[in-house]
Formats: sequence, C-alpha cells, structure tokens
Amino acid sequence: MSTSSPILIVGSMAFDDLDLPSGKARDVVGGSATYAAMTASVFAPVRVVAVVGDDFPEHVLIAMQARGIDTRGIERANGKTFRWAGRYDQDLVHRTTLDTQLNVFADFRPRLPESYRDTPFLLLGNIHPGLQLDVLEQVRSPRLVVADTMNFWITGEPTLLASMLKRIDVLIVNDEEARQLSGIHNIRRAARDILARGPKRLVIKRGEHGALLFDEEGVFAAHGFPLEDEVDPTGAGDSFAGGFLGYLATQSDVTPLALRRAMVHATATASFCVEAVGTGKVGVLARDEVSARVADIQKLYEFGASTM
Amino acid sequence: MSTSSPILIVGSMAFDDLDLPSGKARDVVGGSATYAAMTASVFAPVRVVAVVGDDFPEHVLIAMQARGIDTRGIERANGKTFRWAGRYDQDLVHRTTLDTQLNVFADFRPRLPESYRDTPFLLLGNIHPGLQLDVLEQVRSPRLVVADTMNFWITGEPTLLASMLKRIDVLIVNDEEARQLSGIHNIRRAARDILARGPKRLVIKRGEHGALLFDEEGVFAAHGFPLEDEVDPTGAGDSFAGGFLGYLATQSDVTPLALRRAMVHATATASFCVEAVGTGKVGVLARDEVSARVADIQKLYEFGASTM
Repeated sequence: MSTSSPILIVGSMAFDDLDLPSGKARDVVGGSATYAAMTASVFAPVRVVAVVGDDFPEHVLIAMQARGIDTRGIERANGKTFRWAGRYDQDLVHRTTLDTQLNVFADFRPRLPESYRDTPFLLLGNIHPGLQLDVLEQVRSPRLVVADTMNFWITGEPTLLASMLKRIDVLIVNDEEARQLSGIHNIRRAARDILARGPKRLVIKRGEHGALLFDEEGVFAAHGFPLEDEVDPTGAGDSFAGGFLGYLATQSDVTPLALRRAMVHATATASFCVEAVGTGKVGVLARDEVSARVADIQKLYEFGASTM
Repeated sequence: MSTSSPILIVGSMAFDDLDLPSGKARDVVGGSATYAAMTASVFAPVRVVAVVGDDFPEHVLIAMQARGIDTRGIERANGKTFRWAGRYDQDLVHRTTLDTQLNVFADFRPRLPESYRDTPFLLLGNIHPGLQLDVLEQVRSPRLVVADTMNFWITGEPTLLASMLKRIDVLIVNDEEARQLSGIHNIRRAARDILARGPKRLVIKRGEHGALLFDEEGVFAAHGFPLEDEVDPTGAGDSFAGGFLGYLATQSDVTPLALRRAMVHATATASFCVEAVGTGKVGVLARDEVSARVADIQKLYEFGASTM
C-alpha cells in the first residue's frame, strides 16, 4: 500500500441491534466511519476521527489497526457508544428504525490530531454539516473532499448544508436524498440542480441497482452486482464510500476515468458488505477479492464478443 | 428493411384512459401488441394478431400499415375494443388500475392467417397462456419464440403457464413477476429457478433501472437511460419487447452477443415510449433515433478512456 495516499474518515462508530430475516443480531459493531474505514483500508492507509464510549471493545480498535487504520483520532469518551436499532423486512428492501441512542456521539466535536491535518483524501461521513465544515477548517489543502449527508440534515440544517456543499468535490447521497435535497423527483434534473449548488461531482446510490456518477463528462452507471445471498445491508452505503475513496487514493490523479473505476470498486465493496451481518465481511476483505468482484461487475456490461 | 426477418406479434389492442401527472388523457390507443408492433417495426416487417371492436379507428391501422405492419391478422369484432383505465402517482412509479373492460378481447381466439404461419420471430404478448400455446400450434418451426406473462396468469393458470414456459426461447417479465413466478425474492436465484422451468433465456425488466438478461453466458445488465422528461410509462414494457425482438430480427443468428445488443436496443425503445403519452413517440420512431439513444446508453458504462 506504499503507493496509496492516506485517507481521513470522519463519522460515527456505533453498536447496532439488527432484526434481520436471518435472525436477531445484538451489539453489532457498526457506524459510518467503521464501515468506510474498513473498505477504504483495502486500498490505502486510513485515519479515523470518531468517538466511542467506554463500553467499546478494545479488540475492535486493535483489529482496525492491524488493517492499517490509524485509530489515534478515535476519542474514547465517558459514557455509552452511539447505538442504533433497526428492523428489516423479509426482502431487505425496507427498514424501520426502532431506537436511536446518540450517547457520547451527541457531544462529538471532531478534533484532528496534528498528524492528520495534511491527509490528501477526506471523507466527511454523515454527521451535522456544521461539524463537517469544522473538519474542513482543520485540514490543510486536501486533494479531494467527499461528503455524505442525510434527510435529517437536509430538512434540519439547510443553510449549513448549503455552505458545506460549496466546499466539497464529490457528494454521495442515495436517490431519496437527492430528490429531497433538490425538490425534484427526476434523477437527471435533480442531479443538475445539486451540481449547481457546489459539488463538482455527484454520486447517487440506488441500492441493489447500483449507482450513478454525474460529472463534467456526463453520466456513468455502475450496475449493482446481483448477489445470491443478501444478509444485511447495514453499512452498504458507507462501504461504498470507503471503496470509492480507497480506489481513488491508489491513483496518481482524480481523472474522469479514475472516478468511473472508483464507482465500480465502490459497488464491489458495498456488495461484500451485504453478504454478512455487520462488518463480518468488510472487516476481513482482501484486495484480490475486490478485484475479482470488480471483474464480475464489469462482465455485467460485456457484450460477450470473446465468446462468439 | 429487406435484410430483416418478419416478426409475428400476438397481444392486445386497446383504448387507455390515463390519469397522468401531466393531465388526463382519454381514449389513448394502446395495448401490448400495439406498442410492441410499433417499436419492432423500426427494425423489421411486423405481422399482428389481435382483436379490435367496431369503435377502433381505421386511421390507426392505416398508420401501422405505413410503418410496415401487416394488419391482416387484426380481427375487427362486433362490440367495443378492450379498455383500461389507470392512474399514476406524481412520480410515475406506482399506478392504480381504475377500470378494465375486456369487451371484444374477452372472446379473443388468435387465428393466424396462412401467410403468417412461417414467421421466424414470434412474440407471445401477455394473454392467457392457453392462447399462447394455441398460437404455438399454429406456427411452423419459428426460429425464436419470446413470451411475456403477468401476475394474473401466474396465480390463475399455473399449469398452462408451465406448459408454455417449456416451449419458449425467451421469457420477458418484470422483477415482481419473476419473484411471484419463482416464489423467490432474490433476483439471481429467482432467475435460476425460472430457467429450470424451460425458457433458455430470461429477461427481467426493472423499470427505470433497466433490465437483466440471464443466459448460458451468465448475467448481462442493460442500464435504464436516465430521462429528463418522463411523461407516461404505459406500454414501456411492450415497447421493450418489440425493440428486443426487432433488433434480433435484423441479425443472421441469435447469438449471446446479439441478445446483449438486443437488450440495449430494447432499453432504448422503452425509453422513447416513456417520453410521450401513449404511442405518441413510438408510433413515429425512426431507426436513427434509436441508434443515437443506444449510443447514449452505451456511454453510461464507458470508462471515458478516450477523454483522458
């Protein structure tokens, strides 16, 4: 990984209680920063800024370090770790939030260790847009800033969100969020509206269907990989973002071609996430597994001329 | 079109009353055979077997003839033409059937003119599977048989449907129908289950997201073209089937490569259907328009190397 640039990821670390069709899973280690760090670490050195409570198991941090993840930016606060509980329907398409306990995450103020401030690649996970702006003040001339957000901030903090959008290179949202942010249902027109608000490129995730990239070249579609075994979609979006930035960190330049390849790698890392409960798969993911999945995804669009 | 093989299409012709976000449209000429014939006729000579009532306007049949559609198999029965009424939601994603009047379609018994019996390409539109089998008895050694079906027959006529599936080359259904037919939610496993029931290839349509082809080569994904203006999705699935078979009729062999190209052409013809009320666009569609849209769809997967 010596040729990859470091990535800084700011987001949540959590315990999730999951009611899945395959059964109930309790105290599952999750959070946006956790999933994104694990998939990004397949490609590049990762630095994490997050907060956990005194109940968070040390062995998880040690396992992250073993994957090249710098955990010095993970603050251990007095109190309990952020906890989310949700129930998925039989088809894993819809989910209901049963409980959210912010706990130590309620007072999270991202503070970057000095050694993090020159990180060239930055992922602003889904936290308060004011905190995302605060992180941007603490980094020095990053090469690429990617941000996520959610419905809660779109309706609750439109002004700060608008400021954040003006300062990032890539926004990654799902189709519902794109529609809510723009007020436009049509995906293509929604994308144009959002790009006019600041971000140079926009990625719209569409669940199992894959994701669209809108940039100066036009539209690129990374088709979702049809999985045989879908177990738990929790963290798939964050695993996508981690794979996206991770792949870009292996490239010398963020070109339109690199972005398109990053989309396919991101689709691959997201697909692994769904194949196990929690971080069961992304926590042990190897680069050659990702490469094989990328090849499988590319085959989805191949015209099969070689077989003629 | 002299190099294209003829296509026989059996299905419904109808009047639709549509409540669209853009307004109400009444007495819109529709039906599965109508849409499929119009898009197939972009590529090849088309022969239609259907029934209309004495209220069906002669000028529509004349316009079809002008596009190379042989209408001698369209029976004009005493009574009213099949009529469907539906309302779409604001986002054109969900629709509610408000009324269905089978009228002359209730007694439809497809009878092929002698001149139709040697047609090499056959599209069995969504009619009673017993009638689909009846059509198969009337054709002589077709090169390719493609069939559509729907929930109503999956639950209501499982035995006849099973017989039909054993005798076709390609089944085209949407994802809901694939799940209902197989009893399996996972698309990949549902596809394997359906292929084991007879059809050599399976196409699963997924609305705006495009369509998947499952065949002996594996899986191929034709991404939906993100449209700026979505007006009326009525007939999009039939326009897909017509474009699919139409493209194949221009090819000397039904190879895996030809099937993949047919998927992209089908996605293109379906996208035009959505851009106007009823057959407003597919009824006047030109081959070069389809070629341009196919190029736009292929650009969706391009890695943009040429722009580097």
